[in-house]
Amino acid sequence: MTEVLSSAVTIARDLLRCPSVTPAEGGALQALEKTLQSAGFAVSRVTFSDTGTPDIENLFATIGEGRPHFVFAGHTDVVPPGDLAAWRHGPFDGTIEDGVLYGRGAVDMKGGIASFAAAALAFLADRGPAFGGTISFLITGDEEGPAVNGTVKLLDWAKAQGHRFDACIVGEPTNPAALGDAIKVGRRGSLSGTITVTGTQGHVAYPHLARNPIPGLLQLLAALDGLTLDQGNDRFEPSNLEIVSVDVGNPAFNVIPARAEGRFNIRYNDIWTLAGLKDRITATLQAAAPQGLAYTLDFKRDASESFLTHDETLIRSLSDAVEAETGRRPDLSTGGGTSDARFIKNHCPVVEFGLVGQTMHKVNECVALDDLDRLAAIYLRFLQAYFPRREG
Amino acid sequence: MTEVLSSAVTIARDLLRCPSVTPAEGGALQALEKTLQSAGFAVSRVTFSDTGTPDIENLFATIGEGRPHFVFAGHTDVVPPGDLAAWRHGPFDGTIEDGVLYGRGAVDMKGGIASFAAAALAFLADRGPAFGGTISFLITGDEEGPAVNGTVKLLDWAKAQGHRFDACIVGEPTNPAALGDAIKVGRRGSLSGTITVTGTQGHVAYPHLARNPIPGLLQLLAALDGLTLDQGNDRFEPSNLEIVSVDVGNPAFNVIPARAEGRFNIRYNDIWTLAGLKDRITATLQAAAPQGLAYTLDFKRDASESFLTHDETLIRSLSDAVEAETGRRPDLSTGGGTSDARFIKNHCPVVEFGLVGQTMHKVNECVALDDLDRLAAIYLRFLQAYFPRREG
Repeated sequence: MTEVLSSAVTIARDLLRCPSVTPAEGGALQALEKTLQSAGFAVSRVTFSDTGTPDIENLFATIGEGRPHFVFAGHTDVVPPGDLAAWRHGPFDGTIEDGVLYGRGAVDMKGGIASFAAAALAFLADRGPAFGGTISFLITGDEEGPAVNGTVKLLDWAKAQGHRFDACIVGEPTNPAALGDAIKVGRRGSLSGTITVTGTQGHVAYPHLARNPIPGLLQLLAALDGLTLDQGNDRFEPSNLEIVSVDVGNPAFNVIPARAEGRFNIRYNDIWTLAGLKDRITATLQAAAPQGLAYTLDFKRDASESFLTHDETLIRSLSDAVEAETGRRPDLSTGGGTSDARFIKNHCPVVEFGLVGQTMHKVNECVALDDLDRLAAIYLRFLQAYFPRREG
Repeated sequence: MTEVLSSAVTIARDLLRCPSVTPAEGGALQALEKTLQSAGFAVSRVTFSDTGTPDIENLFATIGEGRPHFVFAGHTDVVPPGDLAAWRHGPFDGTIEDGVLYGRGAVDMKGGIASFAAAALAFLADRGPAFGGTISFLITGDEEGPAVNGTVKLLDWAKAQGHRFDACIVGEPTNPAALGDAIKVGRRGSLSGTITVTGTQGHVAYPHLARNPIPGLLQLLAALDGLTLDQGNDRFEPSNLEIVSVDVGNPAFNVIPARAEGRFNIRYNDIWTLAGLKDRITATLQAAAPQGLAYTLDFKRDASESFLTHDETLIRSLSDAVEAETGRRPDLSTGGGTSDARFIKNHCPVVEFGLVGQTMHKVNECVALDDLDRLAAIYLRFLQAYFPRREG
């Protein structure tokens, strides 16, 4: 039986056949460029470099004129497939079986890009390029990698080109179990730090001649672990701190070590500013440190602020579209990890909505063809609402 | 100026010129054998082997007949010299400068062996081989190493040869600052253990899907660190526990690890048996462990019991000899680390007395020639008291 594939499924399958494991472009941006050019988009391929990180290819495509300027953001790079022998189908074969499309990136997030591209093509076929605004694609190849040569630089590049965005949807997989579960309307911030306690090495038989750094570190870590940062609020879960490692590396049972290190990460909500949270951690350690303890606290430089999107029109338009197609009003979530939305929010209001995340980063990542088509329909409804027909 | 060197200094210098870093014999046992044979000792060289450890040469020498049987115990192996450039004189040159003999092993403990050999030679020259008892040397080449092919096996070997010891002096450097400071009349026991807590790995953004093992480990280690085992007694310092390492080895700030490990060592006095102490640690962890914590406690197999020597004749004879030569009554100490006395105590009463330990294991290890001669005089006085002339 010959299947007639939808536009979303065809685009997704073509993208999945490109082995674009970060930092490789793998043909994915090339395939997307071709699709968008066929619909009249002006497509730019932009490569960014930095010392110590690989060069990364990115794509910016735009169509239409004037405001509002809506941008869809995503990434074609994928995480490595892992154990190849455990895959039901080749991770870059784009195999369809029983209504399911298999491949690395099926839901994270080539599928989401394909659904939005299909929606945009349908929208433009209906309304033509003079639809009363601008639609852009901001697609990076560095989301799963160091994120140095990707979204941040592409946003700055677009700004330098004169683009000003009014709203953004990131097509990451936001639904825990079923399409329509949740729109992300913000993200928690992330702050990491390292505590190093210095003592004096010595023999365990002569503890008075040494200074063991471990008990002091244990006290500092216990103080962090016992910290209740907040109770959360109506949009955010409580902030949470995890001690992720403690390391001394002393192989000898008869030696008191000279140095002990603990590391932590905090996922925090909008009750805290980054600076305020750093102050709180610093003060907590100062209060917990035994007299005379020699320790340092170093925050990692990749910290991010939390954010919450307040553009009710954007949130409502997308929620309405989801409800119309799935019959369910999506939760407005701020859970989970960080995403490129943390960079985009500095340019325009941003929400995130895509496929179901259950198989992301796993062996046999896959997406139901129905989900691809339904997500395309949601995005199309959103575009129709966001760019209403002008009467007259 | 030509110096006339004493017997103790000559023997010490010859031993120091042998590069006997564990496990190398380095000519040291050969030199000692020659010295003792010249005085009539019957000398056996015994090599022990074991899988996974180097073969080790040892020496047993004996003279006289019948009881009491006194044995002097020590080792000719030395720790590595460390930074050669920092040594004032070559560590195996046996250089004498301004009344001081330099070299690795000068105080730990080729010097002690030399002083006892000089004492024994003087004693035998005076009293002849029929002095009314037996004097033996029990010398290992494996004290600074794994101690697998050394004292323990040599004791068993001597026992199999029919030797029964009545008293032993170990010639380790027992004096903190000056000759005569302290005789060791016992040693604390040593118990090491590893605590491993198992959790469930996960992403820090989803702590409810993971189980972080670190907070549980911190609680267990805090309970150990807070433990007051005892207050000591008139012969022993309080028992002491040190946490010597904590290790997770998680390089990622965004990952909750699956496993965390803590390691500790206890130096404990004779208030505790080894079994009783293990029970106490086990119970302390059980009481401190949060409900449902998955952890294991593994005690290292090299644990040793504490001991205290009760042979008042041995202690008094040696104390009297020290006082007669130094003008000071030595402290009866049980401090410091473990030594081969922990093995010898299973065969006969044992005390330890030797040189001043300040330079042991350090660059420029050295001994005053006066100290070598005075220690020889102390050992000689001891032998004279221990083997009194029979009247008539």
